[in-house]
Amino acid sequence: MAKEAKLRRSARLADLALRLLEEPGRTFSLGQLARTYGAAKSSLSEDLSILREVFLRAGIGTIETSPGAAGGARYVPGISRERAENFVHRLVEEVTRPERILPGGFVYLSDLLGRPDILRDVGRIVAAAFASVDVDVVLTVETKGIPIAYAASFALGKPVVIARRDGQITEGSLVTINYLSASSRSIRTMSLSRRAIAEGARVLLVDDFLRGGGTIRGMQELVREFRAEGVGAFVFVEGPAGSGRVVEDVASLVKVEEIDADARTIRAVPGSIFSRAWPSSPWGGLFQI
Amino acid sequence: MAKEAKLRRSARLADLALRLLEEPGRTFSLGQLARTYGAAKSSLSEDLSILREVFLRAGIGTIETSPGAAGGARYVPGISRERAENFVHRLVEEVTRPERILPGGFVYLSDLLGRPDILRDVGRIVAAAFASVDVDVVLTVETKGIPIAYAASFALGKPVVIARRDGQITEGSLVTINYLSASSRSIRTMSLSRRAIAEGARVLLVDDFLRGGGTIRGMQELVREFRAEGVGAFVFVEGPAGSGRVVEDVASLVKVEEIDADARTIRAVPGSIFSRAWPSSPWGGLFQI
Repeated sequence: MAKEAKLRRSARLADLALRLLEEPGRTFSLGQLARTYGAAKSSLSEDLSILREVFLRAGIGTIETSPGAAGGARYVPGISRERAENFVHRLVEEVTRPERILPGGFVYLSDLLGRPDILRDVGRIVAAAFASVDVDVVLTVETKGIPIAYAASFALGKPVVIARRDGQITEGSLVTINYLSASSRSIRTMSLSRRAIAEGARVLLVDDFLRGGGTIRGMQELVREFRAEGVGAFVFVEGPAGSGRVVEDVASLVKVEEIDADARTIRAVPGSIFSRAWPSSPWGGLFQI
Repeated sequence: MAKEAKLRRSARLADLALRLLEEPGRTFSLGQLARTYGAAKSSLSEDLSILREVFLRAGIGTIETSPGAAGGARYVPGISRERAENFVHRLVEEVTRPERILPGGFVYLSDLLGRPDILRDVGRIVAAAFASVDVDVVLTVETKGIPIAYAASFALGKPVVIARRDGQITEGSLVTINYLSASSRSIRTMSLSRRAIAEGARVLLVDDFLRGGGTIRGMQELVREFRAEGVGAFVFVEGPAGSGRVVEDVASLVKVEEIDADARTIRAVPGSIFSRAWPSSPWGGLFQI
């Protein structure tokens, strides 16, 4: 009997973990959970405390509980400082491997953008950094930003919208903007279906690589066309600033400081999302756990 | 003391669940887990049995354990029949909403492809259906197939490679093929970096929408150029067959049978991945759990 109760509790805890992980950010009412599991609210509160410890120790975020009769619990995705630092240091090592240097001073990143293990932690870092800004939707422009957008989406539990480069979209009426690519000094286009973003939505702008910042600025403009609000911007890798940036306040995961194609060396450091990750900054949420 | 032991066990079980979920398909040695948790192998075996029940009941796959001194455990992602059927019925309802009909007989699906809750279950269904073919890498062509590819990737724990439509890729030497789009009767192009797929890799081909099948056939050709092997093909939605298909054996999640733009009706049913999902078929893995 004692053993059975013990087993039941273990199983309930694991099931509760799955349920919370499946829908990050969603608040589950304590009363509803108590009915689902046929358990007392007090036992569930105890379960949630244990789970919080487990999640924090694993470095994947925390569980927030709200007290009272209408009390509930939700999984707040995030990442511990230790896990984030280990991750970004491995990433910097990866990014600076000389065989990544491509003609024209580009860096081969596609393999990293294809790996679900990397994207999972990227998503957690984005979720932690933008926890306080209450994102409704993640916006990117095809193609290479898409993996980063989905990484954020899976962690935040919020949808992705993808702006297209060509106007050849069979998606009804479009909103199209032309913008200046700051690095290539050429006019580029991005289009999005009129129904893709709701008025007033809080939009996180995401891309794979930041050069001059033209694409991010283009996204900001596109968001305004929808009467929505850009609440943050994130890139996987930030390149050398070169002849300056047309946007400020873009959080990056890795910052490439120098690419020397002749010497075949890349120098990189952890990106701005880390240097800003302190309580007094807008990215203060990152390492609260 | 008894209580403390109970708590410790609950926490261990939840932590084990997180660990297994994080790396689908990876085998963890029982000995290693026992050392990590400072627990006896017999207790861990018991934990794994409980977790297996919890995973099966949640309908998200199972835990396989191998016995013996070198024994281990791994999370095999999948989906229960009940969960898959509920999911696909909701999806069919969504897809057939009249406001999805676009000029030219197209169907607006981008919002569905943007939703992480939908993509999670899509990934589980793909993982279940292709469990027996041992996928190394998931291939898609930009743009709309990419979310489906990442859904599969997150569930399977395997990387994604994305073929590009234009040759303007800064990724070193490319493999490019031209192929005939069976539906639009035009020549199209797909390119992939020479380093993107290893020789002999087992490749799952993924796209959002199947019309004539030209794109899937193009991907098959591309895979052969890498001396790799296409081990399966999956699309989110299969359109009306119209004037025939140039490929066979593509698994689909939803099958649109008819789009009547004038009457503003779409007729759809669960796709071929379900009709084939029986033990005697290649998709037999789908509903074993």
